[in-house]
Amino acid sequence: MLTEKTVVKFLDELASNSPAPGGGSVAALASALGAALTSMVANLTIGKKKYLAVEAEMISLRSKTEELRKAFTVTIDQDTEAFNKVMEAFGLPKETDDQKALRSAAIQEATKEATLVPLRVMKLVVDALALTKVVADKGNTNSASDAGVAALMLHAGAEGAALNVYINLNGINDQEFVGWHTDEVATLQRTCKMKTDEILAIVNEKVIKKQS
Amino acid sequence: MLTEKTVVKFLDELASNSPAPGGGSVAALASALGAALTSMVANLTIGKKKYLAVEAEMISLRSKTEELRKAFTVTIDQDTEAFNKVMEAFGLPKETDDQKALRSAAIQEATKEATLVPLRVMKLVVDALALTKVVADKGNTNSASDAGVAALMLHAGAEGAALNVYINLNGINDQEFVGWHTDEVATLQRTCKMKTDEILAIVNEKVIKKQS
Repeated sequence: MLTEKTVVKFLDELASNSPAPGGGSVAALASALGAALTSMVANLTIGKKKYLAVEAEMISLRSKTEELRKAFTVTIDQDTEAFNKVMEAFGLPKETDDQKALRSAAIQEATKEATLVPLRVMKLVVDALALTKVVADKGNTNSASDAGVAALMLHAGAEGAALNVYINLNGINDQEFVGWHTDEVATLQRTCKMKTDEILAIVNEKVIKKQS
Repeated sequence: MLTEKTVVKFLDELASNSPAPGGGSVAALASALGAALTSMVANLTIGKKKYLAVEAEMISLRSKTEELRKAFTVTIDQDTEAFNKVMEAFGLPKETDDQKALRSAAIQEATKEATLVPLRVMKLVVDALALTKVVADKGNTNSASDAGVAALMLHAGAEGAALNVYINLNGINDQEFVGWHTDEVATLQRTCKMKTDEILAIVNEKVIKKQS
């Protein structure tokens, strides 16, 4: 499993001349980093006298960000597995007409799955950003920059996932599937951008205001 | 060392109620992921007949992205160390006037160093983005989405580093240092945004054009 490798080894495998792991797994990892930082800000708020009024909210929020972190972490490997299944399907025999038909169906099926994995990442990022906004707004002010980095990582994760949705949709023949998900990914991109901008406005207010 | 932990353990430590590692180390990791993906696209271009014309350029480029990847990876730990030194300085005794003066000087010194680490990340991201643009433009088209994710990670790394520069500048009394680096970080942010947009325009052209 990729997630059981050290950070250095993960980076080595990423940089290598193998296409997997690639951008899809990195998008999931970026999202996991964003969820983890959101949990951290909640953790640095819980137990502090100054933030007693939001303690219950932060405890409840943390259980959700930790669920999301787990889901993103699992997806780091899932994305690479989905990619490998597409490659396996391309490697199926194509001598007879029957083999050709089976191979083509297997490629289509595997490519649809490889599209749905990053789409799921994008949907989970929308949920995560809503929680990051709460910690940016009400969490420990000393950790405002961490809430900002959380939003940046979640947004990069969603945009990276979107590129993987688009590139996979190019290989799919089912035009209903393509049309539906092309609209969906564009809507998810707009939603994530809007939520990220809201968080960064809150964070910049806290982090940069003292300069003036 | 953080980078010798597994990805799962790194995420666990990040999410914990300890302020380090935090957003600064994540910004360095995001940049390392971007450099690694840039190397990957170069590696998936080298040795392919179709890309023989750019092979020498890709080989030369890869040695630079691998240097940058190493530099970013080292900074994952450096940022946390710099943060811990600031915390240590705050923990120095402050009973006598001499102790107070020493403590204050140590805090200032450590906070300056904690500002320079993410500034260095931003400068290296500018170099990395120039190379990512080359692989997005001339590299293996099948890996266009990976070049795009590389740019997204580098940009998130630079913006995350910028937040860490700003929050540290707030604690520094030396107004010449603050003024100089406030201008510098804003210039670096603009440069990184421009370069990232250029890369994403190239990538979107390759990845999304077939939808229409």
